[in-house]
Amino acid sequence: MVYSKQHTLKLTVDPFNTDFVKRWSWMSLGKSLLNAAEQHAKARGFGMYDVNSDNYTWVLSRLCVEMNEMPLVWDHVNVTTWIENIYKLFTNRNFSIKSPSGKVYGYARSIWALIDYNTRQPQNLEEMYANNFSIYLDPEELCPITKQGRVKPLEDENWVKNIKTEYTDIDLNGHVNSIKYIEHIMNLFALSDYEDGRNLHRIEIAYMAESYFSDDLSLYKRNIDDNTFDVEVRANRMCSEQIRDEGLKKNETLVRCKLFFQ
Amino acid sequence: MVYSKQHTLKLTVDPFNTDFVKRWSWMSLGKSLLNAAEQHAKARGFGMYDVNSDNYTWVLSRLCVEMNEMPLVWDHVNVTTWIENIYKLFTNRNFSIKSPSGKVYGYARSIWALIDYNTRQPQNLEEMYANNFSIYLDPEELCPITKQGRVKPLEDENWVKNIKTEYTDIDLNGHVNSIKYIEHIMNLFALSDYEDGRNLHRIEIAYMAESYFSDDLSLYKRNIDDNTFDVEVRANRMCSEQIRDEGLKKNETLVRCKLFFQ
Repeated sequence: MVYSKQHTLKLTVDPFNTDFVKRWSWMSLGKSLLNAAEQHAKARGFGMYDVNSDNYTWVLSRLCVEMNEMPLVWDHVNVTTWIENIYKLFTNRNFSIKSPSGKVYGYARSIWALIDYNTRQPQNLEEMYANNFSIYLDPEELCPITKQGRVKPLEDENWVKNIKTEYTDIDLNGHVNSIKYIEHIMNLFALSDYEDGRNLHRIEIAYMAESYFSDDLSLYKRNIDDNTFDVEVRANRMCSEQIRDEGLKKNETLVRCKLFFQ
Repeated sequence: MVYSKQHTLKLTVDPFNTDFVKRWSWMSLGKSLLNAAEQHAKARGFGMYDVNSDNYTWVLSRLCVEMNEMPLVWDHVNVTTWIENIYKLFTNRNFSIKSPSGKVYGYARSIWALIDYNTRQPQNLEEMYANNFSIYLDPEELCPITKQGRVKPLEDENWVKNIKTEYTDIDLNGHVNSIKYIEHIMNLFALSDYEDGRNLHRIEIAYMAESYFSDDLSLYKRNIDDNTFDVEVRANRMCSEQIRDEGLKKNETLVRCKLFFQ
Protein backbone atom coordinates (compact mmCIF):
# COMPACT_ATOMS: atom_id res chain seq x y z
CA MET A 1 0.00 0.00 0.00
CA VAL A 2 1.33 3.45 -0.89
CA TYR A 3 0.43 6.27 1.43
CA SER A 4 0.50 10.00 0.73
CA LYS A 5 3.62 11.93 1.67
CA GLN A 6 1.89 13.77 4.52
CA HIS A 7 -0.09 12.69 7.57
CA THR A 8 -2.50 14.84 9.58
CA LEU A 9 -3.40 14.29 13.23
CA LYS A 10 -6.74 15.94 14.04
CA LEU A 11 -7.53 16.95 17.61
CA THR A 12 -9.56 19.29 19.77
CA VAL A 13 -7.90 21.29 22.57
CA ASP A 14 -9.60 19.97 25.70
CA PRO A 15 -9.91 21.94 28.96
CA PHE A 16 -7.49 19.63 30.79
CA ASN A 17 -4.63 20.33 28.36
CA THR A 18 -4.59 24.12 28.59
CA ASP A 19 -2.75 26.59 30.77
CA PHE A 20 -4.29 29.10 33.19
CA VAL A 21 -5.38 31.47 30.39
CA LYS A 22 -6.98 28.68 28.31
CA ARG A 23 -4.15 28.38 25.78
CA TRP A 24 -3.23 24.89 24.55
CA SER A 25 -0.34 23.66 26.69
CA TRP A 26 3.08 23.41 25.05
CA MET A 27 3.39 19.90 26.53
CA SER A 28 0.22 18.72 24.83
CA LEU A 29 1.35 20.44 21.62
CA GLY A 30 4.76 18.74 21.89
CA LYS A 31 3.20 15.30 22.41
CA SER A 32 0.91 15.89 19.42
CA LEU A 33 3.93 16.63 17.20
CA LEU A 34 5.59 13.39 18.31
CA ASN A 35 2.33 11.48 17.87
CA ALA A 36 1.78 12.82 14.37
CA ALA A 37 5.37 11.84 13.51
CA GLU A 38 4.96 8.34 14.92
CA GLN A 39 1.61 7.79 13.16
CA HIS A 40 3.15 8.96 9.87
CA ALA A 41 6.19 6.68 10.26
CA LYS A 42 4.23 3.67 11.56
CA ALA A 43 1.83 3.62 8.61
CA ARG A 44 4.80 3.73 6.22
CA GLY A 45 6.84 0.93 7.79
CA PHE A 46 9.47 2.84 9.76
CA GLY A 47 7.72 3.59 13.07
CA MET A 48 9.17 3.09 16.54
CA TYR A 49 8.31 -0.63 16.65
CA ASP A 50 9.39 -1.32 13.07
CA VAL A 51 12.89 -0.02 13.72
CA ASN A 52 12.96 -1.58 17.23
CA SER A 53 12.50 -5.01 15.66
CA ASP A 54 15.66 -4.31 13.65
CA ASN A 55 17.39 -3.36 16.93
CA TYR A 56 17.36 0.37 16.18
CA THR A 57 15.60 3.29 17.80
CA TRP A 58 14.68 6.80 16.65
CA VAL A 59 16.26 9.60 18.66
CA LEU A 60 14.97 13.18 18.58
CA SER A 61 18.02 15.39 18.22
CA ARG A 62 16.61 18.89 17.54
CA LEU A 63 13.14 20.41 17.88
CA CYS A 64 12.11 23.95 16.96
CA VAL A 65 8.51 25.14 17.30
CA GLU A 66 7.28 28.62 16.40
CA MET A 67 3.68 29.62 17.14
CA ASN A 68 2.11 32.81 15.73
CA GLU A 69 -0.90 32.14 17.87
CA MET A 70 -1.65 29.39 20.38
CA PRO A 71 -4.98 27.55 19.88
CA LEU A 72 -7.41 28.01 22.76
CA VAL A 73 -9.65 25.56 24.61
CA TRP A 74 -12.15 23.78 22.29
CA ASP A 75 -10.29 24.90 19.14
CA HIS A 76 -9.90 22.20 16.49
CA VAL A 77 -6.33 21.68 15.34
CA ASN A 78 -4.73 19.80 12.43
CA VAL A 79 -1.10 18.79 12.98
CA THR A 80 0.40 17.81 9.62
CA THR A 81 3.84 16.26 9.24
CA TRP A 82 6.13 15.35 6.34
CA ILE A 83 9.79 14.43 5.79
CA GLU A 84 11.82 17.23 4.26
CA ASN A 85 14.90 15.18 3.49
CA ILE A 86 17.22 12.41 4.59
CA TYR A 87 20.97 12.69 4.95
CA LYS A 88 23.61 10.18 5.91
CA LEU A 89 23.18 10.44 9.67
CA PHE A 90 19.90 12.29 10.16
CA THR A 91 16.52 13.14 8.70
CA ASN A 92 14.47 16.38 8.87
CA ARG A 93 10.78 16.13 9.65
CA ASN A 94 8.61 19.26 9.52
CA PHE A 95 5.15 20.10 10.85
CA SER A 96 2.38 22.62 10.30
CA ILE A 97 -0.19 23.41 13.02
CA LYS A 98 -3.37 24.82 11.45
CA SER A 99 -7.08 25.21 12.04
CA PRO A 100 -9.35 22.97 9.89
CA SER A 101 -10.11 26.04 7.74
CA GLY A 102 -6.39 26.56 7.11
CA LYS A 103 -5.49 29.37 9.54
CA VAL A 104 -1.82 28.94 10.47
CA TYR A 105 -1.14 28.61 14.20
CA GLY A 106 2.51 27.70 13.71
CA TYR A 107 5.17 25.43 12.29
CA ALA A 108 7.81 23.10 13.66
CA ARG A 109 11.07 21.54 12.49
CA SER A 110 12.71 18.43 13.91
CA ILE A 111 15.86 16.40 13.30
CA TRP A 112 16.08 12.69 14.07
CA ALA A 113 18.83 10.08 14.09
CA LEU A 114 18.42 6.31 13.98
CA ILE A 115 20.74 4.68 16.49
CA ASP A 116 21.72 1.08 17.14
CA TYR A 117 20.07 -0.02 20.39
CA ASN A 118 23.25 -1.60 21.73
CA THR A 119 26.15 0.45 20.37
CA ARG A 120 24.14 3.76 20.49
CA GLN A 121 25.85 4.68 17.20
CA PRO A 122 23.87 6.58 14.54
CA GLN A 123 23.17 4.51 11.43
CA ASN A 124 23.59 5.49 7.79
CA LEU A 125 20.04 6.31 6.75
CA GLU A 126 20.89 6.56 3.07
CA GLU A 127 21.95 2.92 3.07
CA MET A 128 19.34 1.50 5.41
CA TYR A 129 15.90 2.98 5.01
CA ALA A 130 16.40 5.10 1.93
CA ASN A 131 14.15 2.91 -0.21
CA ASN A 132 11.34 3.24 2.30
CA PHE A 133 11.92 6.93 2.85
CA SER A 134 12.57 8.22 -0.63
CA ILE A 135 9.03 7.86 -1.96
CA TYR A 136 7.77 9.93 0.99
CA LEU A 137 10.23 12.85 0.81
CA ASP A 138 8.45 16.15 0.37
CA PRO A 139 11.24 18.78 0.15
CA GLU A 140 9.04 21.36 -1.65
CA GLU A 141 6.44 21.68 1.11
CA LEU A 142 6.79 25.04 2.84
CA CYS A 143 8.02 25.28 6.45
CA PRO A 144 8.56 29.04 6.69
CA ILE A 145 10.38 29.25 10.03
CA THR A 146 14.10 29.75 10.40
CA LYS A 147 16.24 26.79 11.42
CA GLN A 148 17.44 26.77 14.98
CA GLY A 149 20.77 28.24 15.98
CA ARG A 150 23.42 27.01 18.34
CA VAL A 151 23.15 27.85 22.06
CA LYS A 152 26.48 28.58 23.72
CA PRO A 153 27.19 26.61 26.93
CA LEU A 154 25.78 28.28 30.03
CA GLU A 155 27.95 29.35 32.96
CA ASP A 156 27.91 28.27 36.62
CA GLU A 157 26.55 31.71 37.53
CA ASN A 158 23.42 30.93 35.43
CA TRP A 159 22.42 28.07 37.78
CA VAL A 160 18.80 28.32 38.95
CA LYS A 161 17.86 25.06 40.64
CA ASN A 162 18.27 21.29 40.82
CA ILE A 163 15.51 18.73 40.38
CA LYS A 164 15.51 14.97 40.83
CA THR A 165 13.86 12.99 38.01
CA GLU A 166 10.80 11.03 39.08
CA TYR A 167 8.50 8.20 37.93
CA THR A 168 6.40 10.39 35.63
CA ASP A 169 9.50 11.84 33.90
CA ILE A 170 10.38 8.45 32.42
CA ASP A 171 8.87 7.22 29.17
CA LEU A 172 8.66 3.85 27.47
CA ASN A 173 12.30 4.09 26.38
CA GLY A 174 13.40 4.27 30.02
CA HIS A 175 14.69 7.85 29.58
CA VAL A 176 13.41 11.22 30.68
CA ASN A 177 10.82 12.09 28.04
CA SER A 178 11.76 14.85 25.59
CA ILE A 179 8.54 16.73 26.28
CA LYS A 180 9.08 16.55 30.07
CA TYR A 181 12.24 18.65 29.59
CA ILE A 182 10.03 21.33 28.00
CA GLU A 183 7.78 21.21 31.09
CA HIS A 184 10.74 21.59 33.47
CA ILE A 185 12.15 24.43 31.34
CA MET A 186 8.82 26.29 31.19
CA ASN A 187 8.61 25.99 34.98
CA LEU A 188 11.74 28.16 35.27
CA PHE A 189 9.39 31.10 34.59
CA ALA A 190 6.71 32.59 36.86
CA LEU A 191 3.00 32.62 36.10
CA SER A 192 3.31 36.35 35.41
CA ASP A 193 5.72 35.60 32.54
CA TYR A 194 2.83 33.85 30.78
CA GLU A 195 0.14 36.39 31.66
CA ASP A 196 -2.46 37.18 29.00
CA GLY A 197 -0.90 39.18 26.19
CA ARG A 198 2.56 37.67 26.74
CA ASN A 199 3.24 34.41 24.92
CA LEU A 200 6.03 31.96 24.51
CA HIS A 201 6.47 32.43 20.76
CA ARG A 202 9.30 30.08 19.77
CA ILE A 203 11.32 27.33 21.39
CA GLU A 204 14.52 25.74 20.02
CA ILE A 205 15.83 22.62 21.73
CA ALA A 206 18.94 20.52 21.17
CA TYR A 207 18.73 17.10 22.84
CA MET A 208 22.34 16.09 23.51
CA ALA A 209 22.25 13.15 25.93
CA GLU A 210 19.78 10.99 27.88
CA SER A 211 18.94 11.06 31.57
CA TYR A 212 17.38 8.40 33.74
CA PHE A 213 15.22 7.81 36.82
CA SER A 214 16.53 9.52 39.97
CA ASP A 215 19.13 11.55 38.06
CA ASP A 216 19.96 14.86 39.68
CA LEU A 217 19.44 17.60 37.07
CA SER A 218 20.79 21.15 37.25
CA LEU A 219 18.92 23.85 35.34
CA TYR A 220 20.70 27.00 34.13
CA LYS A 221 19.04 30.08 32.65
CA ARG A 222 20.60 33.11 30.93
CA ASN A 223 18.66 36.24 29.98
CA ILE A 224 19.67 37.47 26.52
CA ASP A 225 17.12 40.27 26.63
CA ASP A 226 13.66 40.75 28.20
CA ASN A 227 12.12 38.22 25.82
CA THR A 228 14.95 35.83 24.97
CA PHE A 229 16.43 33.19 27.25
CA ASP A 230 18.95 30.36 26.98
CA VAL A 231 18.46 27.28 29.16
CA GLU A 232 20.73 24.32 29.79
CA VAL A 233 19.98 21.09 31.67
CA ARG A 234 22.86 19.02 33.02
CA ALA A 235 22.97 15.70 34.88
CA ASN A 236 25.13 15.49 38.03
CA ARG A 237 25.95 11.91 38.80
CA MET A 238 27.84 11.95 42.09
CA CYS A 239 27.35 8.29 42.85
CA SER A 240 30.39 6.48 41.48
CA GLU A 241 28.55 3.14 41.56
CA GLN A 242 25.92 4.41 39.11
CA ILE A 243 28.61 5.81 36.82
CA ARG A 244 30.57 2.57 36.89
CA ASP A 245 27.55 0.32 36.37
CA GLU A 246 25.91 2.20 33.56
CA GLY A 247 28.88 3.81 31.89
CA LEU A 248 27.35 7.25 32.44
CA LYS A 249 29.29 10.48 32.49
CA LYS A 250 29.68 12.21 35.85
CA ASN A 251 28.62 15.58 34.46
CA GLU A 252 26.76 15.70 31.21
CA THR A 253 24.86 18.36 29.28
CA LEU A 254 21.48 16.86 28.35
CA VAL A 255 19.64 19.74 26.71
CA ARG A 256 20.36 23.26 25.46
CA CYS A 257 17.41 25.44 24.62
CA LYS A 258 16.46 28.95 23.50
CA LEU A 259 13.09 30.53 24.29
CA PHE A 260 11.58 33.58 22.61
CA PHE A 261 8.66 35.34 24.28
CA GLN A 262 6.64 38.14 22.74
CA MET B 1 -32.44 17.54 21.29
CA VAL B 2 -32.45 14.59 23.71
CA TYR B 3 -29.21 12.74 24.15
CA SER B 4 -28.69 9.24 25.52
CA LYS B 5 -27.91 8.89 29.22
CA GLN B 6 -24.33 7.82 28.57
CA HIS B 7 -21.41 9.27 26.66
CA THR B 8 -18.36 7.38 25.43
CA LEU B 9 -14.95 8.94 24.73
CA LYS B 10 -12.94 6.75 22.35
CA LEU B 11 -9.16 6.94 22.35
CA THR B 12 -5.97 5.07 21.57
CA VAL B 13 -3.14 4.89 24.09
CA ASP B 14 -0.28 6.68 22.35
CA PRO B 15 3.42 6.08 23.11
CA PHE B 16 3.84 9.55 24.67
CA ASN B 17 1.19 8.91 27.33
CA THR B 18 2.57 5.70 28.79
CA ASP B 19 4.95 4.91 31.63
CA PHE B 20 8.32 3.13 31.36
CA VAL B 21 6.71 -0.31 30.98
CA LYS B 22 4.28 0.85 28.24
CA ARG B 23 1.21 1.06 30.50
CA TRP B 24 -1.23 3.95 29.94
CA SER B 25 -0.26 6.72 32.36
CA TRP B 26 -2.63 7.41 35.27
CA MET B 27 -2.42 11.13 34.38
CA SER B 28 -3.67 10.53 30.85
CA LEU B 29 -6.35 8.18 32.24
CA GLY B 30 -7.40 10.83 34.77
CA LYS B 31 -7.64 13.55 32.11
CA SER B 32 -9.70 11.20 29.93
CA LEU B 33 -12.19 10.67 32.76
CA LEU B 34 -12.56 14.44 33.20
CA ASN B 35 -12.83 14.93 29.44
CA ALA B 36 -15.52 12.28 29.09
CA ALA B 37 -17.43 13.94 31.96
CA GLU B 38 -17.12 17.40 30.41
CA GLN B 39 -18.15 16.18 26.93
CA HIS B 40 -21.18 14.41 28.48
CA ALA B 41 -22.23 17.49 30.47
CA LYS B 42 -21.51 19.99 27.66
CA ALA B 43 -23.71 18.19 25.15
CA ARG B 44 -26.55 18.13 27.71
CA GLY B 45 -26.42 21.79 28.72
CA PHE B 46 -24.58 21.70 32.02
CA GLY B 47 -20.92 21.72 31.01
CA MET B 48 -18.18 23.90 32.48
CA TYR B 49 -19.04 26.92 30.32
CA ASP B 50 -22.82 26.53 30.72
CA VAL B 51 -22.58 26.74 34.51
CA ASN B 52 -19.84 29.43 34.33
CA SER B 53 -22.26 31.69 32.48
CA ASP B 54 -24.60 31.32 35.46
CA ASN B 55 -21.66 32.25 37.73
CA TYR B 56 -21.19 28.71 39.03
CA THR B 57 -18.39 26.22 38.64
CA TRP B 58 -18.16 22.42 38.98
CA VAL B 59 -15.78 21.21 41.68
CA LEU B 60 -14.46 17.66 41.81
CA SER B 61 -14.77 16.53 45.42
CA ARG B 62 -13.99 12.77 45.34
CA LEU B 63 -12.44 10.50 42.74
CA CYS B 64 -11.95 6.75 43.02
CA VAL B 65 -10.46 4.72 40.16
CA GLU B 66 -9.94 0.94 40.24
CA MET B 67 -8.13 -0.77 37.36
CA ASN B 68 -8.09 -4.58 36.97
CA GLU B 69 -5.65 -4.14 34.15
CA MET B 70 -4.02 -1.04 32.66
CA PRO B 71 -4.32 -0.66 28.86
CA LEU B 72 -0.95 -0.76 27.07
CA VAL B 73 0.47 1.38 24.27
CA TRP B 74 -1.66 1.28 21.08
CA ASP B 75 -4.65 -0.30 22.90
CA HIS B 76 -8.02 1.19 22.01
CA VAL B 77 -10.05 2.34 25.00
CA ASN B 78 -13.67 3.40 25.49
CA VAL B 79 -14.28 5.62 28.52
CA THR B 80 -18.03 5.71 29.21
CA THR B 81 -19.64 8.01 31.77
CA TRP B 82 -23.10 8.43 33.27
CA ILE B 83 -24.70 10.18 36.24
CA GLU B 84 -25.71 7.79 39.01
CA ASN B 85 -27.75 10.25 41.00
CA ILE B 86 -28.13 13.81 42.23
CA TYR B 87 -28.53 14.90 45.83
CA LYS B 88 -29.02 18.28 47.42
CA LEU B 89 -25.35 19.31 47.48
CA PHE B 90 -23.59 16.85 45.19
CA THR B 91 -23.93 14.50 42.26
CA ASN B 92 -22.30 11.10 41.59
CA ARG B 93 -20.84 10.44 38.17
CA ASN B 94 -19.49 6.98 37.31
CA PHE B 95 -17.23 5.66 34.56
CA SER B 96 -16.32 2.38 32.89
CA ILE B 97 -13.01 1.89 31.09
CA LYS B 98 -13.30 -0.93 28.53
CA SER B 99 -11.81 -2.20 25.30
CA PRO B 100 -13.98 -1.76 22.17
CA SER B 101 -14.83 -5.48 22.39
CA GLY B 102 -16.09 -5.01 25.96
CA LYS B 103 -13.17 -6.27 28.07
CA VAL B 104 -13.26 -4.40 31.38
CA TYR B 105 -10.08 -2.51 32.24
CA GLY B 106 -11.63 -0.76 35.24
CA TYR B 107 -14.25 1.54 36.71
CA ALA B 108 -14.29 4.92 38.40
CA ARG B 109 -16.59 6.86 40.73
CA SER B 110 -16.61 10.63 41.21
CA ILE B 111 -18.51 13.15 43.33
CA TRP B 112 -19.01 16.75 42.21
CA ALA B 113 -20.43 19.90 43.78
CA LEU B 114 -21.61 23.03 41.99
CA ILE B 115 -20.32 26.12 43.77
CA ASP B 116 -21.04 29.81 43.41
CA TYR B 117 -18.03 31.46 41.78
CA ASN B 118 -18.00 34.33 44.27
CA THR B 119 -19.25 32.93 47.57
CA ARG B 120 -17.65 29.47 46.94
CA GLN B 121 -20.79 27.98 48.56
CA PRO B 122 -22.23 24.71 47.18
CA GLN B 123 -25.59 25.13 45.46
CA ASN B 124 -28.74 23.07 45.84
CA LEU B 125 -28.64 20.85 42.76
CA GLU B 126 -32.17 19.52 43.27
CA GLU B 127 -33.54 23.02 42.89
CA MET B 128 -31.23 24.31 40.17
CA TYR B 129 -30.36 21.80 37.53
CA ALA B 130 -32.69 18.95 38.49
CA ASN B 131 -34.83 19.38 35.40
CA ASN B 132 -31.78 19.17 33.19
CA PHE B 133 -30.24 16.31 35.12
CA SER B 134 -33.21 14.09 35.86
CA ILE B 135 -33.77 12.78 32.35
CA TYR B 136 -30.12 11.69 32.22
CA LEU B 137 -29.89 9.85 35.56
CA ASP B 138 -28.86 6.24 35.11
CA PRO B 139 -28.87 4.73 38.63
CA GLU B 140 -29.23 1.12 37.41
CA GLU B 141 -25.99 1.06 35.38
CA LEU B 142 -23.44 -1.14 37.13
CA CYS B 143 -20.33 0.40 38.72
CA PRO B 144 -19.04 -2.63 40.62
CA ILE B 145 -16.29 -1.01 42.70
CA THR B 146 -16.65 -0.16 46.38
CA LYS B 147 -17.08 3.47 47.35
CA GLN B 148 -14.06 5.19 48.79
CA GLY B 149 -13.43 5.33 52.52
CA ARG B 150 -12.21 8.11 54.74
CA VAL B 151 -8.46 8.68 55.15
CA LYS B 152 -7.42 9.70 58.67
CA PRO B 153 -5.24 12.83 58.90
CA LEU B 154 -1.54 12.09 58.50
CA GLU B 155 1.03 12.92 61.21
CA ASP B 156 4.08 15.21 61.11
CA GLU B 157 6.30 12.12 61.22
CA ASN B 158 4.81 11.04 57.84
CA TRP B 159 6.30 14.10 56.09
CA VAL B 160 8.26 13.18 52.94
CA LYS B 161 9.01 16.37 51.02
CA ASN B 162 7.92 19.85 50.03
CA ILE B 163 7.31 21.08 46.50
CA LYS B 164 6.55 24.53 45.12
CA THR B 165 3.70 24.70 42.62
CA GLU B 166 4.74 25.85 39.14
CA TYR B 167 3.30 27.18 35.87
CA THR B 168 2.34 23.75 34.53
CA ASP B 169 0.50 22.81 37.75
CA ILE B 170 -2.12 25.50 37.17
CA ASP B 171 -5.16 24.88 35.01
CA LEU B 172 -7.75 27.15 33.40
CA ASN B 173 -9.48 27.67 36.75
CA GLY B 174 -6.31 29.22 38.18
CA HIS B 175 -5.88 26.33 40.65
CA VAL B 176 -3.53 23.39 40.83
CA ASN B 177 -5.12 20.85 38.49
CA SER B 178 -6.73 17.81 40.15
CA ILE B 179 -4.78 15.40 37.94
CA LYS B 180 -1.47 17.14 38.74
CA TYR B 181 -1.96 16.12 42.40
CA ILE B 182 -2.10 12.50 41.19
CA GLU B 183 1.21 13.05 39.36
CA HIS B 184 2.87 14.52 42.48
CA ILE B 185 1.47 11.69 44.63
CA MET B 186 2.66 8.97 42.22
CA ASN B 187 6.11 10.57 42.28
CA LEU B 188 6.37 9.76 46.01
CA PHE B 189 7.18 6.21 44.86
CA ALA B 190 10.34 4.91 43.16
CA LEU B 191 10.46 3.43 39.68
CA SER B 192 10.93 -0.01 41.28
CA ASP B 193 7.50 0.35 42.96
CA TYR B 194 5.98 0.33 39.46
CA GLU B 195 8.20 -2.40 38.03
CA ASP B 196 6.58 -4.89 35.65
CA GLY B 197 4.24 -7.20 37.56
CA ARG B 198 3.51 -4.58 40.25
CA ASN B 199 0.66 -2.21 39.48
CA LEU B 200 -1.11 0.67 41.12
CA HIS B 201 -4.52 -1.02 41.33
CA ARG B 202 -6.79 1.55 42.97
CA ILE B 203 -6.61 5.19 43.98
CA GLU B 204 -9.09 7.07 46.21
CA ILE B 205 -8.77 10.85 46.43
CA ALA B 206 -10.63 13.45 48.46
CA TYR B 207 -10.12 17.00 47.14
CA MET B 208 -10.64 19.25 50.18
CA ALA B 209 -9.28 22.71 49.24
CA GLU B 210 -7.62 24.53 46.34
CA SER B 211 -4.01 25.58 45.95
CA TYR B 212 -2.47 28.23 43.72
CA PHE B 213 0.67 29.22 41.83
CA SER B 214 3.82 29.32 43.97
CA ASP B 215 2.13 27.62 46.93
CA ASP B 216 4.48 25.60 49.08
CA LEU B 217 3.03 22.07 49.38
CA SER B 218 4.00 19.44 51.97
CA LEU B 219 3.49 15.79 51.05
CA TYR B 220 2.96 13.15 53.74
CA LYS B 221 2.93 9.38 53.20
CA ARG B 222 1.95 6.57 55.60
CA ASN B 223 2.51 2.88 54.87
CA ILE B 224 -0.52 0.85 55.94
CA ASP B 225 1.00 -2.37 54.64
CA ASP B 226 3.38 -3.29 51.78
CA ASN B 227 0.72 -2.44 49.19
CA THR B 228 -1.44 0.23 50.83
CA PHE B 229 -0.49 3.85 51.43
CA ASP B 230 -2.20 7.00 52.70
CA VAL B 231 -1.03 10.35 51.31
CA GLU B 232 -1.88 13.89 52.37
CA VAL B 233 -0.98 17.16 50.65
CA ARG B 234 -1.02 20.40 52.68
CA ALA B 235 -0.36 24.02 51.73
CA ASN B 236 2.00 26.04 53.93
CA ARG B 237 1.42 29.72 53.46
CA MET B 238 4.07 31.47 55.53
CA CYS B 239 3.75 34.77 53.75
CA SER B 240 1.28 36.81 55.75
CA GLU B 241 0.74 39.18 52.81
CA GLN B 242 -0.55 36.34 50.62
CA ILE B 243 -2.83 35.12 53.41
CA ARG B 244 -4.21 38.62 54.04
CA ASP B 245 -4.69 39.44 50.36
CA GLU B 246 -6.37 36.28 49.25
CA GLY B 247 -8.08 35.19 52.44
CA LEU B 248 -6.19 31.89 52.34
CA LYS B 249 -5.60 29.70 55.35
CA LYS B 250 -2.06 29.53 56.68
CA ASN B 251 -2.05 25.74 56.84
CA GLU B 252 -4.60 23.83 54.88
CA THR B 253 -5.14 20.21 53.92
CA LEU B 254 -5.72 20.10 50.16
CA VAL B 255 -5.92 16.42 49.36
CA ARG B 256 -6.14 13.09 51.21
CA CYS B 257 -5.58 9.94 49.20
CA LYS B 258 -5.29 6.16 49.54
CA LEU B 259 -3.34 4.02 47.08
CA PHE B 260 -3.59 0.26 46.66
CA PHE B 261 -0.84 -1.57 44.78
CA GLN B 262 -0.95 -5.23 43.81
